[in-house]
Amino acid sequence: MLDQHGPAGPRTPGTATRGETVSTVPPASTAADAVDVTALLERGRTLATPVLRAAVDRLAPPMDTVSAYHFGWIDAQGNPTEGDGGKAVRPALAVLSAEVTGAAPEVGVPGAVAVELVHNFSLLHDDLMDGDEQRRHRDTVWKVHGPAQAILVGDALFALANEVLLELGTVEAGRATRRLTAASRALIDGQAQDISYEHRDRVSVEECLEMEGNKTGALLACASSIGAVLGGADDRTADTLERYGYHLGLAFQAVDDLLGIWGDPESTGKQTWSDLRQRKKSLPVVAALAAGGSASTRLGEILAADAKSSDFANFSEEEFAARAALIEEAGGREWTAEEARRQHAIAIEALNAVDMPEQVRARFTALADFVVVRKR
Amino acid sequence: MLDQHGPAGPRTPGTATRGETVSTVPPASTAADAVDVTALLERGRTLATPVLRAAVDRLAPPMDTVSAYHFGWIDAQGNPTEGDGGKAVRPALAVLSAEVTGAAPEVGVPGAVAVELVHNFSLLHDDLMDGDEQRRHRDTVWKVHGPAQAILVGDALFALANEVLLELGTVEAGRATRRLTAASRALIDGQAQDISYEHRDRVSVEECLEMEGNKTGALLACASSIGAVLGGADDRTADTLERYGYHLGLAFQAVDDLLGIWGDPESTGKQTWSDLRQRKKSLPVVAALAAGGSASTRLGEILAADAKSSDFANFSEEEFAARAALIEEAGGREWTAEEARRQHAIAIEALNAVDMPEQVRARFTALADFVVVRKR
Repeated sequence: MLDQHGPAGPRTPGTATRGETVSTVPPASTAADAVDVTALLERGRTLATPVLRAAVDRLAPPMDTVSAYHFGWIDAQGNPTEGDGGKAVRPALAVLSAEVTGAAPEVGVPGAVAVELVHNFSLLHDDLMDGDEQRRHRDTVWKVHGPAQAILVGDALFALANEVLLELGTVEAGRATRRLTAASRALIDGQAQDISYEHRDRVSVEECLEMEGNKTGALLACASSIGAVLGGADDRTADTLERYGYHLGLAFQAVDDLLGIWGDPESTGKQTWSDLRQRKKSLPVVAALAAGGSASTRLGEILAADAKSSDFANFSEEEFAARAALIEEAGGREWTAEEARRQHAIAIEALNAVDMPEQVRARFTALADFVVVRKR
Repeated sequence: MLDQHGPAGPRTPGTATRGETVSTVPPASTAADAVDVTALLERGRTLATPVLRAAVDRLAPPMDTVSAYHFGWIDAQGNPTEGDGGKAVRPALAVLSAEVTGAAPEVGVPGAVAVELVHNFSLLHDDLMDGDEQRRHRDTVWKVHGPAQAILVGDALFALANEVLLELGTVEAGRATRRLTAASRALIDGQAQDISYEHRDRVSVEECLEMEGNKTGALLACASSIGAVLGGADDRTADTLERYGYHLGLAFQAVDDLLGIWGDPESTGKQTWSDLRQRKKSLPVVAALAAGGSASTRLGEILAADAKSSDFANFSEEEFAARAALIEEAGGREWTAEEARRQHAIAIEALNAVDMPEQVRARFTALADFVVVRKR
């Protein structure tokens, strides 16, 4: 995994100078600053959503309804709802990547839809495997419709993803499906790692990054290149766009891990100290544990005791706040913020190796900036 | 669905003449009689198994081990075992179908492996959804390794199926994957129907046939054509071979449904009256219920009472035998045996529409005969 960090390489946690401003705001980029990211995200959503809904409508009952609930289009009683639909970074990337080849953004739409289907297949199965009862402020599918439907509908969305691409019947669609399949396998590998890490006392920073690369990096890599592949880009171009997306995914996940501890519940929609409550071995935690020093040692002792505690569910706000403070003191917060900037920089650098219209490059850059500065 | 039955069409249950010999032995076919079916099955198994094992070996731990347990290659402790490996009809069909185009049987191997991977993905997930604790005399994966591994490894095998095909990188592989994806969706549809039927008092013969066509017909259809697709066959040839495989699958399932009630436990490896113990609404049951007449009415009353009985698990051999006798008296056994012959005939007839070497045709015919006369 380490070679995937490129020349910057992962620094040893704790080496960030204390007192250094831990902002994840990337260096200014004039062309990217001029991009309307909200409009770019809206474009991806507007292009992909009708096609996604038409694809899901093909599923036989009750799988169509269960899917519609999962996507937030209807509530548990079957009434239409105004779902927030998420950030829609992946569809925005997929339609943008089509423009790398000079194709219309629409060329990337089947890719955007296929990536969304794979992402949601993995959410359905992961929520069940992890026993997660809530997603986006709503009960998860297995809670509402039962475990069998969560398995079955996940399977159906996964199959549908390949179908949506392969029915294009082109050589490009075959290549795109192959890349999507590789990303899907990485997602599954990442979930296998996530499950196995839960049963371990210690996880290294490298292991955590590898898992996050599989769970988040691989599918963002696919989203960032699939439109280009459908537009006829060669493998070198697709590989380079994947590199952009992979590191963007790692930056995205580092920010997610920061928000999972220090995010504002109003913005994230999650509980305070959400990842600590779930005992997640996220980047700030593993980096703090790997950093050494007295705060790191103390944190290790406390988390080891927490793992055996039968009273963990009743911990107070203050107890979680104390753990978060120790993670910060040991350098885990700083290191993770720096990791987000480092991965963001590698992602941006990857773009330099691909010829593309300057407006497209500015948009990729702006999306990368958005991912790193977001608050939810 | 009815149109898929072709000119023969499904007959109304109960129209078989009482006292008619209920044998599923098909009419003799001299060329097919000369085929060594055991050798044909062994050829498919010998060609496909090493490639299947190599594919599964690619999975990250512990998914490789869990898969090896599922396939019967190791026991729950990880020691190598001599699994019986099943009948291997699908791999035999896949490599045989490559020969339709004049290609070597080896050309069909990636197709055989992909079909086996999809089949086993569905077994892993279905066993969990259905709560089945045993398969092929062994504890199922979710019993041994837990539900999360059953979900995850099923997902991995499904992804691997597409990977094995798509990494061939040919136009034919793209076409084969598209057909496999359609078959996978049918499998999932069939499982959705199976689950929904469990919660219903009555299922019609047509609904049962549609479910069985999805759960068994679609993948046998894919197995019967995928080698030909990889060998460059046109869509018409592939569609016709699919027609053979689809109806062969329905014949296979009708025989399975007979064995599920009247099979010899020594041969099937299942309990006596296995499907009755599971309250399966299989073909003999739904045909008997649809037949009308006094035995049919009595059966309906008894099964309705059984559905509400809290003592069902403690029923004696005699109680199941009485139900089986009623199903037979109502004509369900006869009708199902006739249905197997009818589907077998449609499958054989489909072969006439495809040009192929006579030896290959004889082998397809012999495999169809084998499926219908098997005892396990």
